[in-house]
Amino acid sequence: MDGTDVDRVRVTMLNLQTPALLVDEAAFAFNLATMADRLPGSRLRPHVKAHKCSELARRQREVGHHAFTCATIREMEVMAACGLGDDLLLANEVADATRLSTLVEAGARVTVAVDSVATIEAAGRAGIPEVVIDVNVGLPRCGCDVEDAGALADAARKRGLAVRGVMGYEGHAVGITGRAERQRAVDDSMAVLARAHQIVGGDLVTAGGTGSFDLNTVATEIQAGSYALMDTAYAAIGLPFRHALSVLATVISVNPAGWVVADCGLKALGMDHGNPTVVGGGAVWFCSDEHVTYAPGDDDPPPAVGDQIELLPAHVDPTVAYHEALHVVDAERSTVVETWPVDMRGW
Amino acid sequence: MDGTDVDRVRVTMLNLQTPALLVDEAAFAFNLATMADRLPGSRLRPHVKAHKCSELARRQREVGHHAFTCATIREMEVMAACGLGDDLLLANEVADATRLSTLVEAGARVTVAVDSVATIEAAGRAGIPEVVIDVNVGLPRCGCDVEDAGALADAARKRGLAVRGVMGYEGHAVGITGRAERQRAVDDSMAVLARAHQIVGGDLVTAGGTGSFDLNTVATEIQAGSYALMDTAYAAIGLPFRHALSVLATVISVNPAGWVVADCGLKALGMDHGNPTVVGGGAVWFCSDEHVTYAPGDDDPPPAVGDQIELLPAHVDPTVAYHEALHVVDAERSTVVETWPVDMRGW
Repeated sequence: MDGTDVDRVRVTMLNLQTPALLVDEAAFAFNLATMADRLPGSRLRPHVKAHKCSELARRQREVGHHAFTCATIREMEVMAACGLGDDLLLANEVADATRLSTLVEAGARVTVAVDSVATIEAAGRAGIPEVVIDVNVGLPRCGCDVEDAGALADAARKRGLAVRGVMGYEGHAVGITGRAERQRAVDDSMAVLARAHQIVGGDLVTAGGTGSFDLNTVATEIQAGSYALMDTAYAAIGLPFRHALSVLATVISVNPAGWVVADCGLKALGMDHGNPTVVGGGAVWFCSDEHVTYAPGDDDPPPAVGDQIELLPAHVDPTVAYHEALHVVDAERSTVVETWPVDMRGW
Repeated sequence: MDGTDVDRVRVTMLNLQTPALLVDEAAFAFNLATMADRLPGSRLRPHVKAHKCSELARRQREVGHHAFTCATIREMEVMAACGLGDDLLLANEVADATRLSTLVEAGARVTVAVDSVATIEAAGRAGIPEVVIDVNVGLPRCGCDVEDAGALADAARKRGLAVRGVMGYEGHAVGITGRAERQRAVDDSMAVLARAHQIVGGDLVTAGGTGSFDLNTVATEIQAGSYALMDTAYAAIGLPFRHALSVLATVISVNPAGWVVADCGLKALGMDHGNPTVVGGGAVWFCSDEHVTYAPGDDDPPPAVGDQIELLPAHVDPTVAYHEALHVVDAERSTVVETWPVDMRGW
């Protein structure tokens, strides 16, 4: 996508030090409402790793989602400290769960993913009461072989842990562009997870992401996170969510030979999915540590030093993790309505 | 490089939450001493953008470098607040320099790069006393055309600003692998900068980076930053600096089918230069938000859940910018000697 089709007004001038993350209030509200309509209440377990912001998670709870997914111990800690600890799943393996003991003692409901005897032992030692058995459904990452799921569930129960069910993330499927092909990949993965669930038992079949939220009908709950803010990678596969997130940048140099430089570089953008997209048009040449160099579109008037522009990141998660705050801007994008700290960064 | 040739002992077990940045004390001291020998005192103006750590900058001052290069206003502010404001160059254009006024009033020596009338005006409005004329020497980014350098210098002087000289970063040259080819590219760039200097005047010809520190003989001072910590991209071009920086990670899953997962992902690594390298061997398959998946080398014993490993980042600057602290470890890598906050993050 080239950014010209972004369905919102271009920001004019905000009194913010750039680069700064903007959240379009209307697009964000639309995304939360759309998802809550499609996957209401406990059908969605929002993944906080995409935004690392407890204020944003609070908005997700306000539309009905009370259980959350985390990727790091710090995310678990901050969520619990903010009163969002009704049902927290650490959807990740940890070799040392000690820090989670405090959360359990303070009354948070803490569940962790396990895929080995070592991670079961770690949960047991830390006094974590509940686990899910993490099963490899095709992405070469964490997760046990489906054939080992039963033995691990037995081992966990023998260790005194309650086994709430199974988890299996079809991360290799969620980004597939063609919907039919994506559906097939999701189905193949979920056939594996369903088999594991038959063996393991429990109430939870937890899986999925923004790219499979409406394709994964096996999971009892979907762990989507990106849908709230979105990025160009997910937009490219045709989802019913709007770009809520952008990076505000300031033009600092305009070269008559045909390029423009703005102050949004590698420390303000996750780059693993490629370059950002200039809102309103313009072709990004490259990013360096503090800069993006791009050829402007048909801007009228042409860009000038001091102008503010917006860029859409290619990957939301590692972009947000660089920033201290999310600035919520109103529908006309003329004022900052609220500023939310990105308070779950780090580990 | 595959990481097997890394000339230091593999870390055993440190009591740190992972992922965590490690600085090898001996390698770091070697790098600082080597550079201070080759470019003593004011011949080096260390660039703090690579490490964003005032404690590290303090060590650079201890070996004789009193003038520093910054890329952001926050870096300028923190350096001045830490008593490192003898001579700070903001080697970047800013459309609004207002925040720097406070530093000037507090007695820091503040110089900013300008490449347009608009940025000269911004410096003037903020009461910045000194500037350098930033000249484009071949990298399509900031910097005026050499033909415009004289007029800009005149405009700056008319605005009451002292013009200390010229700046021109040969960023397109510093990463060229072949030394002879790199030398040619540096020479071509510096011929342009020398011409600009003839026109503009002033004491400073400020340029260069870690990749050209010993090739650039035109610059009166070199703005190297990466040399202190290093990364695999710079190591690949054959420089006399050692890998001081690594990311400590914990193995959280070992799959019998042949891969290992550790807790160092896209939010702990700058990815624009590619995947990290596993110290001691091992082939990285991919990184995702919180994970690296890799095929282990000939580790004996093989990796187990809970083991700590180290990874060398491909690009130091955007890696450090994700982390809260640098942990200095001793030569045998068995203890953390000091922990330095990465206190210049953000903008």
